[in-house]
Amino acid sequence: MGQDSPWSFARLPDGCRIGIVGLGLMGGSLAAALRTRRPDLRLLGVARRPETLALAVEKGLVDGGSVSLAEAVPEVDVLVLAVPVRSIIGLVPEAATLLRDGALLTDLGSTKSAVVAAMTASPAAGHCVGGHPMCGRELHGLEAAQADLYVGATWALCPTATSDEPSLMLAAGLARAAGAVPMLIEPDRHDAIVARTSHLPYAVAASLVRAVAAVVPDGELQALSAGGYRDTTRLAASDCDMMLDILLTNRQHVLSALADMAGQIGELIRVLERADEVELRRFLEQARHERRLK
Amino acid sequence: MGQDSPWSFARLPDGCRIGIVGLGLMGGSLAAALRTRRPDLRLLGVARRPETLALAVEKGLVDGGSVSLAEAVPEVDVLVLAVPVRSIIGLVPEAATLLRDGALLTDLGSTKSAVVAAMTASPAAGHCVGGHPMCGRELHGLEAAQADLYVGATWALCPTATSDEPSLMLAAGLARAAGAVPMLIEPDRHDAIVARTSHLPYAVAASLVRAVAAVVPDGELQALSAGGYRDTTRLAASDCDMMLDILLTNRQHVLSALADMAGQIGELIRVLERADEVELRRFLEQARHERRLK
Repeated sequence: MGQDSPWSFARLPDGCRIGIVGLGLMGGSLAAALRTRRPDLRLLGVARRPETLALAVEKGLVDGGSVSLAEAVPEVDVLVLAVPVRSIIGLVPEAATLLRDGALLTDLGSTKSAVVAAMTASPAAGHCVGGHPMCGRELHGLEAAQADLYVGATWALCPTATSDEPSLMLAAGLARAAGAVPMLIEPDRHDAIVARTSHLPYAVAASLVRAVAAVVPDGELQALSAGGYRDTTRLAASDCDMMLDILLTNRQHVLSALADMAGQIGELIRVLERADEVELRRFLEQARHERRLK
Repeated sequence: MGQDSPWSFARLPDGCRIGIVGLGLMGGSLAAALRTRRPDLRLLGVARRPETLALAVEKGLVDGGSVSLAEAVPEVDVLVLAVPVRSIIGLVPEAATLLRDGALLTDLGSTKSAVVAAMTASPAAGHCVGGHPMCGRELHGLEAAQADLYVGATWALCPTATSDEPSLMLAAGLARAAGAVPMLIEPDRHDAIVARTSHLPYAVAASLVRAVAAVVPDGELQALSAGGYRDTTRLAASDCDMMLDILLTNRQHVLSALADMAGQIGELIRVLERADEVELRRFLEQARHERRLK
């Protein structure tokens, strides 16, 4: 889906009705983005807690909503599941069944194989397309929502058994309405890549915090650390519910990535134990070269 | 050296002459900081390449300088070695011998035991104090210098056999003149802590880049990665000469930190292999809790 693909012209129809299930960081930011960029859309929120819904209405992020999926789904043209991955998987069967004819069910989950499998297994009156916008923050909740969260981000789209060209076009239109760049990709390929580019960095940040905290007292950590520690460990502050679901639904790819990471650390240990300056320089320079591509 | 210690009032004497050996990111930023904050000081640069010296003079960062240590050292009250750690160790004997009576020799190196050992072993007419300001960037060279690099940073000071109260006060005054906060600490304690808070994050970032680059093609890395990958790997772009010296002069502490990191990754692999949700949550929540202290 490059600049010259048909997807780059995808556009949500005027007045399209969008339901967003889950009004945390991702769902709340999506509402804020659509509100700002496409004021013609009608936005419905679905939240477990009535207070969250009331706050979203009060902030003007949604036009209204419901705490009931059964009440909300028949009212929308596009339903977006914006909850942790295992909750998405739990909601898919009911949501798919409730869809209007021709409506789209999609999601914002960070892993795609398990979600796409659930979507493919659910008989749907409408059409299902898996989605994953590549953005986020270590903060969470509606209070952390921001209208520009999706701007410029890649938004992966994974076809399911019920995807067709109009529903893929609708999903791409949603991504573009939020300011993101749609990209079609197979779910297993997606999961294999984000296991390295997203889930491994999180796992490494969490492991690093633990390796430091076990030895360095808080006071000295405050005094004797700088921006490097802060940046390298930032992801460790991510929402644990969200990350738990991600790691458990992408277990094999994450385990493979962790094994490679352990291999790299092991190689560095061997080179440093031998004080092998030539090999140490090669290790560091290769990493520096690869990092600077980005 | 808290807010209420005598060090927090340390001040470089008016018109003090400061020599800075090495006009890269750290030395250049120190010159810029002193120039901006203490225009009364006289700043002399020492660089290997005449072009670097000429550029520093042209930018107004130093009043003059030399490519010869022997020429510059007798002219200054404070000599700061701002080159990679093993170059510092190589320069200490000559620099210490050339010091005027009562002058201070200090440095900006990131590891302190080897530097302090070299300073203690060198007969000095003046006094030696090891120094390490806890700041930096992944960029390097005079072009990357910035006057506010040191502001608010902890500046570790490590006593040597020739340190006395006036020379420690002079070193603390230098730190404060750059906007940093002086902190007295034993060199081995310093090295053990920064092995975790600084050198390990760098080693982890470099290893992570390699674990990702080995599997994910460049194009997909660009499309399917976000701020998390960028931040977690930022340190991997650090200057390799500087980092090589750091790792080789703090080898035992870094090896111990890497062993603990490998242990944490190994624990995460075991928990994830068993899909043990309770233990996985505990692992992630402990990391999140520790990270949020910062």
